[in-house]
Amino acid sequence: MVSVLIREAKEGDCGNILRLIRELAEYEKLSDQVKISEEALRADGFGENPFYHCLVAEILPAPGEPQGPCVVGYGLYYFIYSTWKGRNIYLEDIYVKPEYRGQGIGSKIIKKVAEVALDKGCSQLRLAVLDWNKGAMDLYKALGAQDLTEAEGWHCFRFEGEAMRELAGK
Amino acid sequence: MVSVLIREAKEGDCGNILRLIRELAEYEKLSDQVKISEEALRADGFGENPFYHCLVAEILPAPGEPQGPCVVGYGLYYFIYSTWKGRNIYLEDIYVKPEYRGQGIGSKIIKKVAEVALDKGCSQLRLAVLDWNKGAMDLYKALGAQDLTEAEGWHCFRFEGEAMRELAGK
Repeated sequence: MVSVLIREAKEGDCGNILRLIRELAEYEKLSDQVKISEEALRADGFGENPFYHCLVAEILPAPGEPQGPCVVGYGLYYFIYSTWKGRNIYLEDIYVKPEYRGQGIGSKIIKKVAEVALDKGCSQLRLAVLDWNKGAMDLYKALGAQDLTEAEGWHCFRFEGEAMRELAGK
Repeated sequence: MVSVLIREAKEGDCGNILRLIRELAEYEKLSDQVKISEEALRADGFGENPFYHCLVAEILPAPGEPQGPCVVGYGLYYFIYSTWKGRNIYLEDIYVKPEYRGQGIGSKIIKKVAEVALDKGCSQLRLAVLDWNKGAMDLYKALGAQDLTEAEGWHCFRFEGEAMRELAGK
């Protein structure tokens, strides 16, 4: 049984986080959309007013093992605002490398995010899941989440690129 | 033809904004979920590090009319973070009072939010829409938005209340 530590990311983790962001996007079959750089992750998450916060899951080596600790998963979140409930948390990404799944690491990450949310006075934790990712959907439902697209009919919309420039008249 | 001004909300607008938040929730058939107060809106939106930003649509009286300007719509947004694209904007609420619809006020609000997004270096503007609100869905699509629930299968999930406390083990 491996020993796992869930901890706040440090600036030096950004290289590992970017590799995991790319792995997640590949898993989601949307990797052509990843344009972020390690430099942007460093600047945006570790300045005075960080745009995001991140937890990493680190496997600790057994005593006597030669290799150092190894980051195998992450959860990246930020604060949002509900006009019904006030300040809340949005979990933008949660990912565990395939070879480390089935050991409860994903659940540990999301539980830690929920702890942060309650500590900060948030009453909601939101996230988005792809409908074909049945394993993830079942896990979140088993942990008590509600599928609002199913229950209330919410659809996610996005403007970007040319559409956004046209909208802004630029 | 009435004259409309889209401007940044001031702290003194919070009473009007709260009334419009409640009207929007009623329209969405979800008004039992509104727990926010005017005091919370004032504290959260107008401190040193505001949790949200808000635009209001104000009808300007014609010359000689006795009543003052009147707030008839709002758009409330905040900054989010995409691990694919970096800093972006989320439009949490957009609402225009029924008697002022069909005059392009909603489009003016969303265009102004897109301007802010581009000015701040954001490449995406995200929002969520209820599937039975066909008028809104058609408007956003006509303006160039993509329905990601339809196109890619994204579902909105939410933990709250007891489910969140259990998740956090509290």
